[in-house]
Amino acid sequence: MKTLQTLFEDGLRDIYYAERKILDALSKMAKAAREEETRNAFTLHREQTEGQITRLEEVFESIGQEVKGKTCPAIDGILKEGEETLKDYADSPALDAGLIAAAQAVEHYEMARYGTLVTWADQLGFDDAADLLDVTLEEEKLTDDLLTQLAEEFANPHGTKPEA
Amino acid sequence: MKTLQTLFEDGLRDIYYAERKILDALSKMAKAAREEETRNAFTLHREQTEGQITRLEEVFESIGQEVKGKTCPAIDGILKEGEETLKDYADSPALDAGLIAAAQAVEHYEMARYGTLVTWADQLGFDDAADLLDVTLEEEKLTDDLLTQLAEEFANPHGTKPEA
Repeated sequence: MKTLQTLFEDGLRDIYYAERKILDALSKMAKAAREEETRNAFTLHREQTEGQITRLEEVFESIGQEVKGKTCPAIDGILKEGEETLKDYADSPALDAGLIAAAQAVEHYEMARYGTLVTWADQLGFDDAADLLDVTLEEEKLTDDLLTQLAEEFANPHGTKPEA
Repeated sequence: MKTLQTLFEDGLRDIYYAERKILDALSKMAKAAREEETRNAFTLHREQTEGQITRLEEVFESIGQEVKGKTCPAIDGILKEGEETLKDYADSPALDAGLIAAAQAVEHYEMARYGTLVTWADQLGFDDAADLLDVTLEEEKLTDDLLTQLAEEFANPHGTKPEA
């Protein structure tokens, strides 16, 4: 019988798979970025993702479940779109604007999933899991705010950073 | 030469394709929902999506571009995941919780894309487009808040609505 608990466990496996894919993608994006500030943002986000993966492993442990990923077509699609931007805009001054947009699509996917997982953990009485997942949710929100600020700094029709 | 303007136009085509896919998905989700409140939320969101498609057509027109969609692997992946939930949880009391989660993943994708498009429209001086896109962005945020409330109402380990 499928229950809210199986839904929660499926969701954990989905985001665990997603986080590991995101880790690889952020390395590529940091390498490709033209501006130092964008590169730093992706590098920071990559380090954060490593911590979030460890935190997810603690969540699995807290509910007595094996750490396991499950193919997540959503993140595969989101990252595929990011790779297309990376390829199509490799020589364009607007590359960083495109990469930041791709990173924000990733960030929003994570916010949606962690938000849902926190709610379900609360309803299932998995208090430790809820607390751990909530820490990550807040990190994702902050990262998205930073990316929004960065996108807004490219305040010109070339989608590039103004000279200091 | 690829510029911020081509990035903006690509983004419009991406979300235009996405919105039309979302329209179909919401019909299926409304039909499948077990609780009347969930069904009403999806039906309302579907009507809103129709308005957002019309608004996007006005955005294309405002910048003198042909109305056109472009395959968006991100939304295809997100909706594929929603369909898996619909199939796997068809007979489960947790179906509505899963469908709401799927709808929130969609909502967050839209928030990410519209947020980016508003920023780029501003930078490109497309004021009418920015205003139109911002109306949709605000609608998406409200819809996501409503879905969060709905998810939180299922305040029990069965992921179902408590009896009144």
